Amino acid sequence: MSILIKNGHVVYGENFEVIEADVLIEGNRITKVARNINEAADTVIDAKGRVVSPGFVNLHTHSPMGLLRGLADDLPLMDWLEKYIWPREAKLTREYTKVGAYLGALEMIKGGTTTFLDMYFHMDAVAEVTLESGLRGYLSYGMIDLGDPEKTEKEIKEALRTMEFIDKLGSDRVHFVFGPHAPYTCSIALLKEIRRLANEHRKLITIHVSETMAEIGQISERYGKSPVVLLDDIGFLGSDVIMAHGVWLEGRDVRILARNGVTVAHNPGSNMKLASGVMPLQRLLNAGVNVGLGTDGSASNNNLDMLEEMKLAALLHKVHNLDPTVADAKTVFRTATVNGARALRLNAGVVKEGYLADLAIIDFNRPHLRPMNNVISHLVYAANGNDVETTIVNGKVLMLDGEVLTLDEERILNDAERVIGELV
Amino acid sequence: MSILIKNGHVVYGENFEVIEADVLIEGNRITKVARNINEAADTVIDAKGRVVSPGFVNLHTHSPMGLLRGLADDLPLMDWLEKYIWPREAKLTREYTKVGAYLGALEMIKGGTTTFLDMYFHMDAVAEVTLESGLRGYLSYGMIDLGDPEKTEKEIKEALRTMEFIDKLGSDRVHFVFGPHAPYTCSIALLKEIRRLANEHRKLITIHVSETMAEIGQISERYGKSPVVLLDDIGFLGSDVIMAHGVWLEGRDVRILARNGVTVAHNPGSNMKLASGVMPLQRLLNAGVNVGLGTDGSASNNNLDMLEEMKLAALLHKVHNLDPTVADAKTVFRTATVNGARALRLNAGVVKEGYLADLAIIDFNRPHLRPMNNVISHLVYAANGNDVETTIVNGKVLMLDGEVLTLDEERILNDAERVIGELV
Repeated sequence: MSILIKNGHVVYGENFEVIEADVLIEGNRITKVARNINEAADTVIDAKGRVVSPGFVNLHTHSPMGLLRGLADDLPLMDWLEKYIWPREAKLTREYTKVGAYLGALEMIKGGTTTFLDMYFHMDAVAEVTLESGLRGYLSYGMIDLGDPEKTEKEIKEALRTMEFIDKLGSDRVHFVFGPHAPYTCSIALLKEIRRLANEHRKLITIHVSETMAEIGQISERYGKSPVVLLDDIGFLGSDVIMAHGVWLEGRDVRILARNGVTVAHNPGSNMKLASGVMPLQRLLNAGVNVGLGTDGSASNNNLDMLEEMKLAALLHKVHNLDPTVADAKTVFRTATVNGARALRLNAGVVKEGYLADLAIIDFNRPHLRPMNNVISHLVYAANGNDVETTIVNGKVLMLDGEVLTLDEERILNDAERVIGELV
Repeated sequence: MSILIKNGHVVYGENFEVIEADVLIEGNRITKVARNINEAADTVIDAKGRVVSPGFVNLHTHSPMGLLRGLADDLPLMDWLEKYIWPREAKLTREYTKVGAYLGALEMIKGGTTTFLDMYFHMDAVAEVTLESGLRGYLSYGMIDLGDPEKTEKEIKEALRTMEFIDKLGSDRVHFVFGPHAPYTCSIALLKEIRRLANEHRKLITIHVSETMAEIGQISERYGKSPVVLLDDIGFLGSDVIMAHGVWLEGRDVRILARNGVTVAHNPGSNMKLASGVMPLQRLLNAGVNVGLGTDGSASNNNLDMLEEMKLAALLHKVHNLDPTVADAKTVFRTATVNGARALRLNAGVVKEGYLADLAIIDFNRPHLRPMNNVISHLVYAANGNDVETTIVNGKVLMLDGEVLTLDEERILNDAERVIGELV
């Protein structure tokens, strides 16, 4: 299978230089980027007036939560979780979760996301959807034991069952990740066992850490230290850990994250909407911490639009620091692409020979993206997910000219509407 | 001329109740909102699965600045203005400005904006474009005299020339507004003369006030008071004044604005991107100040997307106050619709019998807008301008199913690209 993308404005290489070129994809790799490629290809896409961008890596989401979009807004995090989200999630069967996963996958394909790191439950169902959708998914079952040893065992069992299920799929796109929910919902015993299991099975770990001031207070009261110091002290941290949020970090925390090679998945939209706070982006980047970008779930965002998320990231840090020069367009674009891929140990997030063919083609023939003064600026500050026209993952076209080829859009929207009628 | 919109989810009345209904438009008014309207109409629009919303009122923009989109980002306001924007604006001829105005009008129609309050130069050209586009425009020539009496006279002359030009158009959609740029760029003499002229000609006034800390310092040094106190002291304020930004306001300023019935046009995207600061939204609303929403120009936003702007407003105030309950969806939706209309003394911004027929029809058959759990939440938190399908102003369809009927889209995009090539 080969794809030839003609005459696009290509966001090329690690430094996102914009060049006019063709892109040749053979198998699941980008094999050539040059002017006037004349090789024959199975599929030829005309990208005139379009921008060929690395696909977006959503480094933290709960993809089936689209079902709960808009059900509870303008509430404090714990009210939101305890009174609205958790009671509804308790009713989410495997079938319902799968409907939510389809909705999430559809939304991601439409918005040019090519890879996502997910945490939810019924992740075997999410894995089936990911396989079918054509997306690249890193899927974790979210474990919560609240210090109950019986629950610890049950959660580990479910995680391992999910791991086996996903590994048996044998897909190079669908991967299992360990997902302890957070230091305040998981026992030390569970966290330590996950560290051991991740080493044994060579899997990544993702976890919510330092999201709210309330969490900092709770962990400090329970353990006398910050969540990051706690995780460091029990040997949990490493370069295979992707920590979501990281809003409330002290200088010492940042140094620990840098030393351990931990990646932080930044979720500006969710942190803003839930009023959690502002992640210290500059401090993390200055310390050399790898920072990716995530949308979080659609109940706290309320969409999975990585282009919108880039704008939120850039704008939030500028106003918070009263410094318009921080979180510049290229820095933010990097968090949404190559930094996310790096965290997942994925040779993607860059349009260049040898990289995985995970691409988004974005239609710039629209008034809000003209004149084409600065492509990266337009992607970060002016575009949104609806501008994406074509999405390619692993050398396969998932959406062409706005039409999703791998999923049945109408059925998914109808199913979502039906399920929520039964759920509320 | 009549239009019948069938089977939509209608955002009805002053309190934005969502009902399933038809909407009948006769002439330039909404005459009936009810189920199963059977009256014949010249145009029938099927809005099944769609949301019929009040059109958006962009209460502060510089519509031709789309030309400069992305030319200079990630810079401090004064650097941005003095080194990048002003030198380019100095080269903007009437023809170039008109090309920019076309681009802006096209973008606004596509995003469901029906009314805008503009400040720029060559406003006679902008008026021609507004007339042709079908939009409702309140247009001010931006006056700057920097204390030079010769310049004062020249600026007033140009404003009056523009006023005459616009008044002669005799359109009920295109209006002249007085636009002194700001207290730090206008002399007291100019501001006082504008107050007199606005009274004489019964025109509105718009002005940038208290946008940056630098401005506060400059005005304090020059006059020993805040910009708002200064304007109050010279008798400039009134319920016909729409003040853009209002970021740095003391308690006394807020009380003065409330007492004078001044409207504040909030520009969260621009204030964030230029790192100007955060407008005290709660304080203004609590004091009873009318607050509208604006995008500012596309050089500091970088688009004219009012749906995106609503999300920015809601999220910014939540995280800034560390309180997720402030700037709730309905409050923000109100700023983008009825509050803007009220500032312009316009009987619009509400879908209800008797109001002007200024509407946006938004396609909710999209994964990021399903399930339809909460329409207002989806409009504020999940939608963007690209979701708008049909735009109606003053009882006339400007865009139908994504196709703009009043302007030549392709020509406008090509012209914008050509002009910027000549300008840079």
